[in-house]
Amino acid sequence: MEQRLSLITVGVKNLTKMREYYEKVFLWRPVSENENIVFYQLNGFMLSFYPEHLLAKEVHENDTRTGFKPFSLAINYTSTAEVDDIFSLLKQRGVVVLKEPEDVFWGGYSGYVSDPENNLWEICYNPFMNFDKNMNVVGQEAL
Amino acid sequence: MEQRLSLITVGVKNLTKMREYYEKVFLWRPVSENENIVFYQLNGFMLSFYPEHLLAKEVHENDTRTGFKPFSLAINYTSTAEVDDIFSLLKQRGVVVLKEPEDVFWGGYSGYVSDPENNLWEICYNPFMNFDKNMNVVGQEAL
Repeated sequence: MEQRLSLITVGVKNLTKMREYYEKVFLWRPVSENENIVFYQLNGFMLSFYPEHLLAKEVHENDTRTGFKPFSLAINYTSTAEVDDIFSLLKQRGVVVLKEPEDVFWGGYSGYVSDPENNLWEICYNPFMNFDKNMNVVGQEAL
Repeated sequence: MEQRLSLITVGVKNLTKMREYYEKVFLWRPVSENENIVFYQLNGFMLSFYPEHLLAKEVHENDTRTGFKPFSLAINYTSTAEVDDIFSLLKQRGVVVLKEPEDVFWGGYSGYVSDPENNLWEICYNPFMNFDKNMNVVGQEAL
């Protein structure tokens, strides 16, 4: 299977509140939607929110077995100053801060916020990650 | 915050087993790695596996509050035949099938497999999703 991905679906408890947050705090705009799902176009793939009980049903699984896994999403910027700037903006919009941006042991600089359902977003500067002019990730130096 | 994402980190219980699976079943190749983390270059971003207790520690959170959320990852193909083909290949490699590919109510065709820690992968054909020549997702018809 190729190393690519088309869609990340995050199971949510309250679709309305999640949409409100992503559209008012992150200022995202949906590309398509209905009463049960919303899709946001990201860089080369979609992120969708879908009620968690429907996600469980979709895979013929019960709620307890269906991938209740920890994960985080990260958006990278090209300098620590940019991380600080976006962090300030998000705080002005009332975001929940889990960790203020700080130098991290592996040589980067990052902070964490959480959305209304405690999904983790890292706002990050990683000097070892390479980007193209559209800010797609095109590589990373060996660890 | 722009509608883009640089990194998805999946918290794992057993990094060795997870790597073995993704590299032997999915045939993925890491772009960088150490004893605690592995990065795979996907289409314009990275997917990484990281021990879940370290992920929790990273955000100064305890294990119970840190985003144990349901989510799924999906890879899309451009026909039902391609979905069937990749599904057959994965089954030959001993993948756990949660759901054989089938027509779904919204007009697509998909099946689900799970990795060793029950993370969900949907193998999907969605006639309403648009791709560029590199199979990056470039749009989706309105629902």
